[in-house]
Amino acid sequence: MIYLHKHKVGYAETDQMGFMHHSNYARIFENARWELFRSLGLPYKQIENEGILMPVVDMELKFRKPAFYDDELTVNTTIKKRTGVKIFFEYTVTNSKQETINIGKTTLAFMDKHTRKPVRVPEIIAQIIN
Amino acid sequence: MIYLHKHKVGYAETDQMGFMHHSNYARIFENARWELFRSLGLPYKQIENEGILMPVVDMELKFRKPAFYDDELTVNTTIKKRTGVKIFFEYTVTNSKQETINIGKTTLAFMDKHTRKPVRVPEIIAQIIN
Amino acid sequence: MIYLHKHKVGYAETDQMGFMHHSNYARIFENARWELFRSLGLPYKQIENEGILMPVVDMELKFRKPAFYDDELTVNTTIKKRTGVKIFFEYTVTNSKQETINIGKTTLAFMDKHTRKPVRVPEIIAQIIN
Amino acid sequence: MIYLHKHKVGYAETDQMGFMHHSNYARIFENARWELFRSLGLPYKQIENEGILMPVVDMELKFRKPAFYDDELTVNTTIKKRTGVKIFFEYTVTNSKQETINIGKTTLAFMDKHTRKPVRVPEIIAQIIN
Repeated sequence: MIYLHKHKVGYAETDQMGFMHHSNYARIFENARWELFRSLGLPYKQIENEGILMPVVDMELKFRKPAFYDDELTVNTTIKKRTGVKIFFEYTVTNSKQETINIGKTTLAFMDKHTRKPVRVPEIIAQIIN
Repeated sequence: MIYLHKHKVGYAETDQMGFMHHSNYARIFENARWELFRSLGLPYKQIENEGILMPVVDMELKFRKPAFYDDELTVNTTIKKRTGVKIFFEYTVTNSKQETINIGKTTLAFMDKHTRKPVRVPEIIAQIIN
Repeated sequence: MIYLHKHKVGYAETDQMGFMHHSNYARIFENARWELFRSLGLPYKQIENEGILMPVVDMELKFRKPAFYDDELTVNTTIKKRTGVKIFFEYTVTNSKQETINIGKTTLAFMDKHTRKPVRVPEIIAQIIN
Repeated sequence: MIYLHKHKVGYAETDQMGFMHHSNYARIFENARWELFRSLGLPYKQIENEGILMPVVDMELKFRKPAFYDDELTVNTTIKKRTGVKIFFEYTVTNSKQETINIGKTTLAFMDKHTRKPVRVPEIIAQIIN
């Protein structure tokens, strides 16, 4: 349950410090975890089509080193745990010099798309992540 | 049918040139035109609640001068024309030195929220913009 | 050392869940903390002009409830602590129903703009935050 | 002088209409044109390293059809013209059904990184684009 996602830092992601702005990581982690899900045979799109939303309920980031324009980042994503109501992801981001530049965690819950109420882990996810 | 919208340039909007990145204008224009609508008594939220979406179908921007971090920009928004199926907005952005830094145009259409088909101008809009 | 910053949720900030996308909080917190600094007489722009950058080194967010398009959010920002090398901010975000929807923390360090090396808290900051 | 750039629509790019928000195109075009430059042997990063910035001075977009979450878009980028002071790009965006969903144009100028004044086309660009 590991996936290596690549992210090329775009110009629009830089700020006037000359770094990739820290707000971009949330979006990069999101792309990384759904590519992990796709690699497990379950694209996130399909989860929403089945009537389930997966909102982020917790996020933590440690910024170790800056990322720069045009850097090719590798996001190593793992699923640490899955309970009846939540799923816990961890991310380690390295640059092309193999330096760890960011470590992140996100916790996601499950929500019914129509009632907007929290629900237990849907069967399609429980089958592949136990 | 004019509205002056203020926008303070945030740090996340800057890029490594030290300018506000040009991709931010689309979002600023969007906020500006819906504040114009609110000033006419019709918040955009209410339009969506009535089942109408207003997608952008055309956008043009002329970037005259850069905007910088913490600049307070003024967006002068006007409705230039309204036909049976479209509405035409123009935007002039000035900085605190009263320099015109950007001129933009957007054309929006009307779409039924449920069928996702184009529709004619809804009555709630025709009543205030003729 | 408290500041109440207002943020109106823009359309571009929404996602197809119909919520404000969680990635927007990093940017909102950033705007909130620099408005707090401005209220203390020290705009962040002036800090950079003095040759100091303040990168984020840690960020934590707890997402309690969603924010929606056009919601007016209030970000209550406080400075919890200041050491010789770091400054710790906390944020509580409430919606117009006075519900707490998000709680965040960010830790910022100080960096020399030219050498890009970490530095101790600059005098201009130590004078106002002790 | 043609390049096909791929863009997978991320969740953060969607809005509550369920479409990719129109503000994302400016960023996608930017990534596409610099990948075109890279394919010509001249990464944009190298241009900035030589002391030249290339700000956007004009942008036009025609939104024909919406893009959706997880769509794989193809951006066909061409250089239409190069004068002594500007370079003109055109973009045609297609979805995986080969439908043209967006047509864009951007004009870029050349600026000295240090003086921030407009300059004529630098030799490294004139050599590959005539």
